[in-house]
Amino acid sequence: MCLTLVKQLLEKNEKGQVIATCRNPNGSAGLLELKSKFAERLDLQQLDLTVETTIEESAKSIAERYGSLNVLINASGILSIPDVLQPVIILTFFNFSTETTLSKLQRSSLMLAYEVNAVGPVLVMKHMWPLLSIGGRSGTDRDVAVIANLSARVGSIGDNCLGGWHSYRSSKASLNQLTKTVSVEFARKKDPIVCLLLHPGTVDTDLSRPFQRNVPEGKLFTKEFSVQKLLSIISNAKRHDNGKFFAWDSQEIPW
Amino acid sequence: MCLTLVKQLLEKNEKGQVIATCRNPNGSAGLLELKSKFAERLDLQQLDLTVETTIEESAKSIAERYGSLNVLINASGILSIPDVLQPVIILTFFNFSTETTLSKLQRSSLMLAYEVNAVGPVLVMKHMWPLLSIGGRSGTDRDVAVIANLSARVGSIGDNCLGGWHSYRSSKASLNQLTKTVSVEFARKKDPIVCLLLHPGTVDTDLSRPFQRNVPEGKLFTKEFSVQKLLSIISNAKRHDNGKFFAWDSQEIPW
Ligand SMILES: NC(=O)c1ccc[n+]([C@@H]2O[C@H](COP(=O)([O-])OP(=O)(O)OC[C@H]3O[C@@H](n4cnc5c(N)ncnc54)[C@H](OP(=O)(O)O)[C@@H]3O)[C@@H](O)[C@H]2O)c1
Ligand SMILES: NC(=O)c1ccc[n+]([C@@H]2O[C@H](COP(=O)([O-])OP(=O)(O)OC[C@H]3O[C@@H](n4cnc5c(N)ncnc54)[C@H](OP(=O)(O)O)[C@@H]3O)[C@@H](O)[C@H]2O)c1
Repeated sequence: MCLTLVKQLLEKNEKGQVIATCRNPNGSAGLLELKSKFAERLDLQQLDLTVETTIEESAKSIAERYGSLNVLINASGILSIPDVLQPVIILTFFNFSTETTLSKLQRSSLMLAYEVNAVGPVLVMKHMWPLLSIGGRSGTDRDVAVIANLSARVGSIGDNCLGGWHSYRSSKASLNQLTKTVSVEFARKKDPIVCLLLHPGTVDTDLSRPFQRNVPEGKLFTKEFSVQKLLSIISNAKRHDNGKFFAWDSQEIPW
Repeated sequence: MCLTLVKQLLEKNEKGQVIATCRNPNGSAGLLELKSKFAERLDLQQLDLTVETTIEESAKSIAERYGSLNVLINASGILSIPDVLQPVIILTFFNFSTETTLSKLQRSSLMLAYEVNAVGPVLVMKHMWPLLSIGGRSGTDRDVAVIANLSARVGSIGDNCLGGWHSYRSSKASLNQLTKTVSVEFARKKDPIVCLLLHPGTVDTDLSRPFQRNVPEGKLFTKEFSVQKLLSIISNAKRHDNGKFFAWDSQEIPW
C-alpha cells in the first residue's frame, strides 16, 4: 500500500514534494521507477522504524531541505513475518500467523509487533511533528496539518469478536492509544495538528495475502481503491476529526 | 496493593491456599510476616514478569504441588521507575513521570512498559490457564474459573481526555486488547474461564505516590478498601462478565 500511496500523492498534485521512506529504497523497484518518472519531486530516504537514529536523521534532512511538512503518513506495519531470523537476540522463527491460540503466543513476536507497529510510528511523530506545526496548511485545501497513522479494524478492542492475532491486535490497540494521547496534546497547540487513525479495509497486499481465502467476495480491495479513499479522508480532515479512528469509508470505528 | 491482596485472600477463607509471586520474595518484609502467620497456606515463589522461564517454572511447581488453580490475579504493573539502570542495553534513566509531552517520549520506557504491563501478564495467562481449566470451580461460590488482570482507567482510549503517560496508557490498552483476545478464545471452551480487567481506583501505593497531590479529596483509596472491592467483583464473576473491564465500583469502563 505504501508504494501506491506515494504514486497517488505524486499524481494527485502537480507540484507537491513527496518524501518516501523505507528500509532499503534502492531495493524497491517500484520506488525507483517512480523516482525515474517524477525525479526531484520524489525524495527517497532510508528509515527503519526500529532504529530511532534513522528517524531522527530523516527528520533533520527534511528540515534542512524543505523546512516543513504538511502531511505525515505512517503506513508501515507487520502482521506475519514467516521465517525471519532475529540473530542478535536468539535464532527464532517469527510467524504471527500461527497466533490462533494463547498457547502459541511468543514473547518475541509480541515485542517485535510493538516495536514496529506502535513504537516506530510514535517515534516518527516525536521527531517530525515540529515540521508539521510550521508547514501544515501550506499548499493544501485543509486548514490543519495532518498526521495519519494506518491502524486496523482488528486493533479495535470493542470490535474484537474473533480473537487470535494477539501481537498484531494488541500492537494496533497500543498505536491507537498512543495516537489518541498525542492528539490530546496537539489539540492544545495554537496551530493544531490533526491526528487520524485509518483502517484501509482488507486490501490485496503482501500483508493480507496469507489470509485472503477467508475474505468474502467483493471485500478484498485493490490498493488503488483503498489509497484513494484514505487520501480523500486526509484531504478533507477537519479539526474535529482529531484523535478519531476512521475506516476507508469514513465510518468511525469503536476503540 | 499486591501484599494487601494476598493478606485479604488469606483472611477471607480459612482453608484456601494462596501462592504469591514476586521478584524477590525474601526481600519483602510484608510477605515474610504473612508467611510466619499463615505458614503452609501461603506459598512464596520467585517470578519476574520479564523472564518467561520464571513464569513457566512457577506454573510447573503449582501443577506439581496443587494440581490446579481457581483464580489467577495479575496485579503487578509499573508506571514510573525513577533512576532505574538498564545496564544490559544502555545506561538510561527511566522516569515515565516526565512523559507529559511527546517530545520527552523514550523508546526504552515504551518497550519496558509493554514488557512488564502487557507481555508479562499474557505470558502468565499462557502458562497458567491449563491449571485454571481443571480447578476453576472447586471450593468457590462461582461456577467459573477467573483470571483478573489489573488494568487502569487511564488505559481506556475512549476515556483519554488528558493525554500524557504515553507508555503506561498504551501498555494498559495493549493489556486490555490481549485480555479481550484471550477471553474470546476462553468463551469457546467447555469449562469457561472468565477474564476480567479491573481498575482499582486511585489507590495510596508506591505507584501513585508521585501523583497524589492532583487527586481530589476523598478520591484516594486505601489499599484495604480497593482490594475488598476487587475481590468482591472476582467472587461474584459470572460467565457474561468474560472480557469486560470493570472499575472498583463494578461500573464498566469504555475501551
Ligand atoms: N492489507 C490489509 O488488508 C490491511 C488491513 C488493515 C490494516 N492494514 C495496515 O495498513 C498498513 C500497510 O499495510 P500493507 O498491507 O501495505 O502491508 P505490506 O504490503 O506488508 O507493507 C508493509 C510495509 O511496512 C514496511 N515495514 C515493515 N517493517 C518496517 C520497519 N522496521 N521499518 C520501516 N518499514 C517497515 C515494509 O517496508 P519495507 O519495504 O522496508 O519492507 C512494507 O513496505 C499497515 O500498517 C497495516 O497494518 C493493512
Ligand atoms: N495505585 C493506583 O492508583 C493504581 C491505579 C490504577 C491501576 N493500578 C494498577 O494496579 C496494579 C497494582 O499497582 P500498585 O499501585 O499496587 O503498584 P505498586 O505498589 O508499585 O506495586 C507494583 C508491583 O509490581 C511488581 N512488579 C514490577 N515489575 C515487576 C516484574 N518485572 N515482575 C514481577 N513483578 C513486578 C512489583 O513487585 P516487586 O515486589 O517485585 O517490586 C510491585 O509489587 C498495577 O497493575 C497498576 O498498574 C494502580
